[in-house]
Amino acid sequence: MNLEKVCVDLKTRSYNILIGQNLLNQIGLFCRSILPSQKGVLIGDSNTTALYKEDCLISLLKENFHVSSWQFQAGEKSKNLTILGRLYDFLAEEKLDRKSFLIALGGGVVGDIVGLAAATYLRGIPFIQVPTTLLAQVDSSVGGKTAIDLPSGKNLVGAFYQPNLVLCDVNLLKTLPRRELICGLAEVVKYGIILDRDFFDFLETHIEGILALETSLLTTVVKRCCELKASVTAADETETGKRAILNFGHTIAHAIEVVSGYGKYTHGEAVAIGSLIACKLSETLMGFPPAETERIEKFFIKIGLPVSLVSTEIRSVDSLVLAMQNDKKTLAGIPRFVLVQHIGEAKFGCQVPESLLRKSIEEFIR
Amino acid sequence: MNLEKVCVDLKTRSYNILIGQNLLNQIGLFCRSILPSQKGVLIGDSNTTALYKEDCLISLLKENFHVSSWQFQAGEKSKNLTILGRLYDFLAEEKLDRKSFLIALGGGVVGDIVGLAAATYLRGIPFIQVPTTLLAQVDSSVGGKTAIDLPSGKNLVGAFYQPNLVLCDVNLLKTLPRRELICGLAEVVKYGIILDRDFFDFLETHIEGILALETSLLTTVVKRCCELKASVTAADETETGKRAILNFGHTIAHAIEVVSGYGKYTHGEAVAIGSLIACKLSETLMGFPPAETERIEKFFIKIGLPVSLVSTEIRSVDSLVLAMQNDKKTLAGIPRFVLVQHIGEAKFGCQVPESLLRKSIEEFIR
Repeated sequence: MNLEKVCVDLKTRSYNILIGQNLLNQIGLFCRSILPSQKGVLIGDSNTTALYKEDCLISLLKENFHVSSWQFQAGEKSKNLTILGRLYDFLAEEKLDRKSFLIALGGGVVGDIVGLAAATYLRGIPFIQVPTTLLAQVDSSVGGKTAIDLPSGKNLVGAFYQPNLVLCDVNLLKTLPRRELICGLAEVVKYGIILDRDFFDFLETHIEGILALETSLLTTVVKRCCELKASVTAADETETGKRAILNFGHTIAHAIEVVSGYGKYTHGEAVAIGSLIACKLSETLMGFPPAETERIEKFFIKIGLPVSLVSTEIRSVDSLVLAMQNDKKTLAGIPRFVLVQHIGEAKFGCQVPESLLRKSIEEFIR
Repeated sequence: MNLEKVCVDLKTRSYNILIGQNLLNQIGLFCRSILPSQKGVLIGDSNTTALYKEDCLISLLKENFHVSSWQFQAGEKSKNLTILGRLYDFLAEEKLDRKSFLIALGGGVVGDIVGLAAATYLRGIPFIQVPTTLLAQVDSSVGGKTAIDLPSGKNLVGAFYQPNLVLCDVNLLKTLPRRELICGLAEVVKYGIILDRDFFDFLETHIEGILALETSLLTTVVKRCCELKASVTAADETETGKRAILNFGHTIAHAIEVVSGYGKYTHGEAVAIGSLIACKLSETLMGFPPAETERIEKFFIKIGLPVSLVSTEIRSVDSLVLAMQNDKKTLAGIPRFVLVQHIGEAKFGCQVPESLLRKSIEEFIR
């Protein structure tokens, strides 16, 4: 078994990310030494529960864990206070104590909501992330951000709370709908753009193999993304500084998701378009070479990501700008942007004149 | 102005508790140097808003703070997910950013719910506690515990989250209904019982003056309680050990509150009865002198606290025991108790045989 390991170094709250294949049906083994009790709850959405719950529970039972399970309807629309409240009620019914644990089996929505439940139930209990999408394996399951959405904005309520273990089984990516895989690749490419030019080159070179789900390539990709995210997170756990560069493309992406109604664009699709708009802004404000914007755009097209917005789906530029002003990274009503000098180097906290922002967004509407 | 100060030493999250009279109408001054932005929301319940909102807002406005206000119906019944959700929606409407602050103006319910909102809105924003009851000044506003109740139990959802400042204006205690004042004294006496025999003696000696709301006595009492709580909290912020002794009487008290329906007994009344039952258990298990149980019981009676349970209000001993098994301090279904060796010294994590527990509870039912 090729088992890769990335340690997220957060002193007393350090934890490991394990990356490899066929990890899910050994989850009991991996949990054995790191949990303070044998009692827990496995939480998935309607998709992941149908696909993987059985395997998880069998492996956990083999190691004498007593684990009940709970699920909710798949989709970003479930990431709200109502579902969180139902989950709390279930945890109370199951009489979990402070040493009991939660397992989040799913993509970003499951990880975010279960992470927040773990952060707040009894003021914090252990939890394990088992990300089942590429997006979750390379991004949302690592770094300890948990959240739910409010009607007025994405991720407005949440906590910084670290899991005890992240288990990335790349085999799970093979059941992923193609659109979900592609969506995850938007975040993968983002790491290259903001932090690692060599990794960007590697992705360009091997994109066919990645899209064909070659196991060793997937393992390499997930591991490199986790390493990059772990190092940024360790340096700045609660996003007071450097960690903000991970939000490249995201201020615009969140606005696209809010304005189009969650679900029209996947998160990754919105990030792809947001990244290109951020590149465009960077051309004017940071001297980012237009040829690199073009290179990224071509790469997104090759992957199958959208590179422009459909005008009927985003109402107006005004509504996008308004949504950005409501973003939680906003300070005193002025959104901050992550911009790039060249592929591999980014800067956070940049102010962008509203006129330039509007002009750049307009270029991407068709 | 006699301004007393207690520092809660939590490294980078250290903060001050200010204790004195006429502090509320100077709140703007005290906030001036410790908040990262001028924008905030003042939250109170229907009682505290009517009494104190105006004074607060005037003082804040003088220092150029831009503060809007929000309120909810007074009472423990409001400490739930529905009210928290409405508060989140208000914060989103007000477009608070990560540097904006909340002010909790009220007793334990307000402090708990506003603290949890501050801990989770945008994954954590600054907040200030302005406790308006004796219970909140000596206990709930200090130490960073925040929470809401679930239908199945008190404080089941919450976070450890420290305020930036606690402002204890003892003048506010003068508008407090007598029952609320008496309720707070149950927690005050608790500090003496578990940590400080001299303080217990002091309270016995000066109880008439305290009940007559003599300002200098109130200041001394609040300050000593805050010092004791601050030292325990600093030693063990997230209650993995010593901090648990503050729960003296509370496992039983919470069960009383759950079983009788929140509101029948005030928290302090339940704590008084819980403390006496814990003394009774301590007699058998720790050699606690029966004369000291009697001394405490007499003191509670003098203060005006109940010293027994009304049988019609608590259904049965079974229901109390069941509620304790659902308490969040329970580990593996076995409740843990804080017991006392003598007045001034306590021990946490004690197991109590169920038969003894039942017998001791029965002694207090009339």
